[in-house]
Amino acid sequence: MEIEPATLGKSRLFARGWSWLKALPARKFKKVVEAAKSIKQLGQDDPRRVIHCLKVGLALTLVSLLYYCKPLYEVFGDTGIWAVLTVVMVLEFTVGATISKGLNRGFATLFAGALAIGTEYFSRLFDRKAEPIVLGVLLFFLATTSSFTRFIPRIKARYDYGVMIFILTFSLVSVSGYRTENLLEMAHHRLSTIAIGGATCIIMSVFVCPVWAGKDLHNLTASNLEKLANYLEGFGGEYFQADPDHEEEGITITASKDDKALLQGYKSVLNSKNTEESLANFARWEPGHGGFHFRHPWNQYLKIGALARQCAHLIEVLDGYINSDIQPPPEIRNKIRESSTKMCLELSQALRALVSSIKTMTDPSAADPHVKCSKTSINDLKIALEAASELENVDLLAIIPIASVASILTEIAKCVERISELVHELSLLAYFKSAATSDQQEPAGSGLHRGSVRPVLDDDSDRTITIIVQATNV
Amino acid sequence: MEIEPATLGKSRLFARGWSWLKALPARKFKKVVEAAKSIKQLGQDDPRRVIHCLKVGLALTLVSLLYYCKPLYEVFGDTGIWAVLTVVMVLEFTVGATISKGLNRGFATLFAGALAIGTEYFSRLFDRKAEPIVLGVLLFFLATTSSFTRFIPRIKARYDYGVMIFILTFSLVSVSGYRTENLLEMAHHRLSTIAIGGATCIIMSVFVCPVWAGKDLHNLTASNLEKLANYLEGFGGEYFQADPDHEEEGITITASKDDKALLQGYKSVLNSKNTEESLANFARWEPGHGGFHFRHPWNQYLKIGALARQCAHLIEVLDGYINSDIQPPPEIRNKIRESSTKMCLELSQALRALVSSIKTMTDPSAADPHVKCSKTSINDLKIALEAASELENVDLLAIIPIASVASILTEIAKCVERISELVHELSLLAYFKSAATSDQQEPAGSGLHRGSVRPVLDDDSDRTITIIVQATNV
Repeated sequence: MEIEPATLGKSRLFARGWSWLKALPARKFKKVVEAAKSIKQLGQDDPRRVIHCLKVGLALTLVSLLYYCKPLYEVFGDTGIWAVLTVVMVLEFTVGATISKGLNRGFATLFAGALAIGTEYFSRLFDRKAEPIVLGVLLFFLATTSSFTRFIPRIKARYDYGVMIFILTFSLVSVSGYRTENLLEMAHHRLSTIAIGGATCIIMSVFVCPVWAGKDLHNLTASNLEKLANYLEGFGGEYFQADPDHEEEGITITASKDDKALLQGYKSVLNSKNTEESLANFARWEPGHGGFHFRHPWNQYLKIGALARQCAHLIEVLDGYINSDIQPPPEIRNKIRESSTKMCLELSQALRALVSSIKTMTDPSAADPHVKCSKTSINDLKIALEAASELENVDLLAIIPIASVASILTEIAKCVERISELVHELSLLAYFKSAATSDQQEPAGSGLHRGSVRPVLDDDSDRTITIIVQATNV
Repeated sequence: MEIEPATLGKSRLFARGWSWLKALPARKFKKVVEAAKSIKQLGQDDPRRVIHCLKVGLALTLVSLLYYCKPLYEVFGDTGIWAVLTVVMVLEFTVGATISKGLNRGFATLFAGALAIGTEYFSRLFDRKAEPIVLGVLLFFLATTSSFTRFIPRIKARYDYGVMIFILTFSLVSVSGYRTENLLEMAHHRLSTIAIGGATCIIMSVFVCPVWAGKDLHNLTASNLEKLANYLEGFGGEYFQADPDHEEEGITITASKDDKALLQGYKSVLNSKNTEESLANFARWEPGHGGFHFRHPWNQYLKIGALARQCAHLIEVLDGYINSDIQPPPEIRNKIRESSTKMCLELSQALRALVSSIKTMTDPSAADPHVKCSKTSINDLKIALEAASELENVDLLAIIPIASVASILTEIAKCVERISELVHELSLLAYFKSAATSDQQEPAGSGLHRGSVRPVLDDDSDRTITIIVQATNV
């Protein structure tokens, strides 16, 4: 019975652990529970994360068979370790990132390996003592110049990992080559195990519950526009809702409590630039997938994103007026409530129509009437403001905040109009379905202007081609 | 004369290359020249980049001596390759990033190596056939759970590389351990070569022309505030400069051409969040350096940065009014020109005083009078607006843009006031020198209020401590 002392030790360890846990102050214990909860939340927010982790575990276990299976080990020997290394480094959350890293790694290894072997044979032309000097000088030169290319923005965005692997492989092969006789065989084995590792990663990420960066970018763009729509819809109610019959503050607060979380959603749009850019970079590497073909116009999403951020900046300023100490008197507020609320509603409906068009990948013409209406309500708003200023006993200063709000709303309207134009371009470039063929998800109100729904590739086919040519020239 | 044919071949190659170059269409050649110029520009913009590349080359050449020097090779053998690998992976542009990666790599390797060796000996308790199954299950479990920790934001920000190396090392050691007898020796060698590589990187980055992330963050904060100051200074001239005597457009355009680049500087502030956060993350790893002690309040810079971005959002909206189609009539413009221009100037001077305080690490009290003046000019602006509205024949709608500009300027003034408060807190937390002791870099105008310059740790010592305690509790 050899195991008994160990078991005893184990139970003693458990007892100790338990007493340590009990001795923990309640506050610390609470912290641990909270941390555990937030970790659970991470998984619940996006279950694809859990699946990704299982994929990493599975891929690693698979490539470790190169070591565990005797027949495989006899072929590859110790170089099998490079497959393990490749899987850890290459398998990323999205398909695009995995393919990008895999191809970067593959080509960089191939290229650097070939160059290093060439260097090695070149250095062998010199005598044994001069060899390390030649190798060292070449290594220094190559490492310095390739490090510098990592500062070039274009290369940093797409090939940073490749350049790093290039330096890595070149150093490894040229340095270790000095002590290795059968250099070509080693390079061959290493390359094939890296290929096995890379292929495992790419197959795993494309075929087992794939997470497409392109789809994520598409959804992110839609959800960002939706957040702006939420704000605009809420803003009308929030800022103008103070009814002359119920002027108590209490009502404002209860109403705002419900919508607060929804209203604050726009804040995440402000800092979306980096996420969008990296998703677009990864999306370019992805093969076609459900609705997105290989050369899908990913750049167009970046343009829409830039305008969405501009709109979010305007909203950020608008938001300052809700919480401002200086609130306009109710009689002025009432004068312009109708036109402002209508404008906000039209803008948010226009955005919602665009969101639904992006989500269902159908023609975005349903947004056009709302964009048009928001334009006409700019004039209504001006007339209402003029009427407000002609009220008696009204201080001009009291109108300033309202005038500013109106002016910012006008800017937002312009911004939404340009977003709508960009989504129209996107629908042409990405061959969105004509709205007429998909009735199931039509946004409210679009039925009124059925006549304006135009077939995508009919009268506009010339424009389509022009846009595509422009886009590919970029 | 063996070399002759080679030389001949070389010259022929040169001739071919030259004809190929000549055959290149002029446009392509121009492109290449432009690319070369932009690469040169990259180096000129920040010569530290070139130095960094030389450091990478030097460090790699140094660690390759582990292979090239026979006595060293006899000690470390093939594991010397891990030093090369470590240098390529760990040596980063800033000291903080290098130390962070180095320590992450070191501790992750140590911890994962120990765990893997433990696992290996544990699995050897089972028979040879069951061993890979036990190892595989453990590998799967560990890889899955540690991959998941990479999604936790706190860990992702600071220990992402460490977790990756943990998975990497655990897989490598546990997998290759199955075929290795002298596991402990291998682990020992690998760990010591990684330590050599890591130490080379850290020494190289700390002692050879170091690039401190902390200093960069400090300078970035100052330069962001300076960009806001530039805009505000330019805005007064840009928007209100139209003189009634010289109402031609030509003048506006010539003036704006000069300042355009300076004015647009604020745009880079809008997207500074990620850079600031990563610099702050790296700065936390850095030892004390010139004026910055080890636990310098880096968080305070993030707070200032957030407010600077808020200010930049306001400026983004303000900028829309310069380029707007609807321009206020000159008589209204003239009415409020003086107060607005004064306010813009005071705000920009306040910001400049804060910038100079941050740059010289001296007490920021010189900004106080300007902040106070900008507050009083809010009232002046209101009075001027009221006067403008009482002009005869003035349409209220014509005042709206001006009123909005005034309202946004008021918001910017509030923002600048809060920035000033945060810089005051920073000066206490980071023990900035009292302004009285450093006369050389005093900003214009501060001399008037000499009485208000207070010694940092005299009457306010209680407040200092409170703030420090609050800061460390965060």
